[in-house]
Amino acid sequence: MDRFSPAALALSIVQAPLAGGPSTPALAAAVSEAGGLGSLAAGYKTADAVAADIEAVRTVTAAPFGVNVFVPGPAPADAETVARYAETLQHEAGPLGEPRSDDDDWDAKLALLHAARPAVASFTFGCPSAERIAALQDDGIAVWVTVTTPIEARTAAAAGADALVIQGAEAGGHRGSFDDATPGTIGLLALLQLVAAETELPLIATGGIMSGAGIAAVLAAGASAAQLGSAFMLTPEAGTSAPHRAKLASEGETALTRAFSGRTARGIVNRFQRQHDADAPSAYPEVHHLTAPLRAAARTRGDAEAINLWAGQAHRLAQARPAGELVRALAADARAALRAAADRAG
Amino acid sequence: MDRFSPAALALSIVQAPLAGGPSTPALAAAVSEAGGLGSLAAGYKTADAVAADIEAVRTVTAAPFGVNVFVPGPAPADAETVARYAETLQHEAGPLGEPRSDDDDWDAKLALLHAARPAVASFTFGCPSAERIAALQDDGIAVWVTVTTPIEARTAAAAGADALVIQGAEAGGHRGSFDDATPGTIGLLALLQLVAAETELPLIATGGIMSGAGIAAVLAAGASAAQLGSAFMLTPEAGTSAPHRAKLASEGETALTRAFSGRTARGIVNRFQRQHDADAPSAYPEVHHLTAPLRAAARTRGDAEAINLWAGQAHRLAQARPAGELVRALAADARAALRAAADRAG
Repeated sequence: MDRFSPAALALSIVQAPLAGGPSTPALAAAVSEAGGLGSLAAGYKTADAVAADIEAVRTVTAAPFGVNVFVPGPAPADAETVARYAETLQHEAGPLGEPRSDDDDWDAKLALLHAARPAVASFTFGCPSAERIAALQDDGIAVWVTVTTPIEARTAAAAGADALVIQGAEAGGHRGSFDDATPGTIGLLALLQLVAAETELPLIATGGIMSGAGIAAVLAAGASAAQLGSAFMLTPEAGTSAPHRAKLASEGETALTRAFSGRTARGIVNRFQRQHDADAPSAYPEVHHLTAPLRAAARTRGDAEAINLWAGQAHRLAQARPAGELVRALAADARAALRAAADRAG
Repeated sequence: MDRFSPAALALSIVQAPLAGGPSTPALAAAVSEAGGLGSLAAGYKTADAVAADIEAVRTVTAAPFGVNVFVPGPAPADAETVARYAETLQHEAGPLGEPRSDDDDWDAKLALLHAARPAVASFTFGCPSAERIAALQDDGIAVWVTVTTPIEARTAAAAGADALVIQGAEAGGHRGSFDDATPGTIGLLALLQLVAAETELPLIATGGIMSGAGIAAVLAAGASAAQLGSAFMLTPEAGTSAPHRAKLASEGETALTRAFSGRTARGIVNRFQRQHDADAPSAYPEVHHLTAPLRAAARTRGDAEAINLWAGQAHRLAQARPAGELVRALAADARAALRAAADRAG
């Protein structure tokens, strides 16, 4: 059976998984139904919840979609390091969580992928073993691996990935880096050129892409598709919280930080990020669990200064319109931009 | 008289100024003669030396070219801060320089621009006043201003710039930021989209562009031309030092640092950068003058671990071939990439 290829998309647009709230079955279904590739985020959820999300998408559309899974890290973080960080958070409003280590239900999620067989299984925070990749492929699932450096791209290609999601430093949310100690911070266009020079695999470009012009750019650079995250976060289908929505549409500057989760991620700089960034250790998912109740409380009271405002560097260009309409408009703009540039170039 | 527009270029490629060694009249002339826009770097040189460079270009080609000038900062750095940094450099091999403040011969260079009238005067580290820009334009000189944030772009547009050089965080060498206290670190594609949403001015995109695919990308995103720096640093016409050349062609990772000059710049990480980055203050040009003799000595003895290895994030793709041939090949590759992407998009 032929596995899904990004070249088969009617519109070369992939919706980024957007774990942690914005991801919904309605968003993934709308994007896929419009001719792009919607994605479900398995991250932070139980395998059962993800199974329900997959079912929800399939009640709306028969179009292909992807499911994104976090690859667990090699070892728990140092408990003392995490405890020291917890001390610095004592004055925050709201309860702290238990800083536990877990594998985000890895085995159950892999079993779910085999059972549910989405068109694409994409992975973040690492590269599954060649054996696991081959097993998924044997079930007809295309395996995409998120990479942030040429070295990670080589690892994923060697492990047999069907395609690489090239995540530029512009991207909002977590860096997909295999090792948080050395998060890749290469700009999208530089990374695309570097990886394209080494592999024939299809590349899906992500990081800061918000417009038809941005999509046209990565397609011209040779990417098979553009993956957009922040661009979808103001759509009515997204589960983005109200305070997060308000900040996305503003001019707020973004920065990389480990303050919220213990893993490097890009968010709009707010009070919490400014205050805790310097103290935050590399300790994922311990710090994620530690701050989760704090952030949930802040979200409930509408306090944008104490939640993780994940956003790519060009978030201000996000549009509040239905996801399907957005995908179609962006694709039309991208086509027009490519045609115009090709004509100018002669 | 009509001022020069990037749309008038036969090939939409601008050679970045490359102050501090790589810039030569032979390089600028070769690029302009091939149909791109060569640039001379006035930075660090006397106005007389720049005048000689301009003459040298004009003996080779009648084609338009640009001259890039550093805009002086508002005030000298704190002497004690600089002295403290100097202390940390005592164990470096070679003499330290006098950490003086200067304006890089600003008035004389402006007078030279008016006298020599290059097609383009581009500015870095700030935006000249509206009056100075208008005066240059009155002499038929197109004024380009380097920007690293949407706010800087607004300032330059309001001051009357003819075009904006959009410098992404991928770029090698100094960030062109107006204020080194807040260096813009937005990726090229994100910054291009953000600025294009606000202005109709022609945009010249720079930062990590090394290939025809990279050029095609920024043209598709709406840029009028692509400016390349590292891509030219291995050409025989460039004045790049031998140890710097050896590192450019390797896989060395880059990072932003103030260690060499007191101003944020991207270089391939070496021993000096690793050792002194954390101590380096924002103090330009004082730290530049402080470390200049050290770096000159290291260059002479071929020690790549003690010199500023300015390079963009995709430097490994630099090609050692004549500049004119390189420009023609890159432009042909860019055209082909645009045509192919437009055809695929339908």
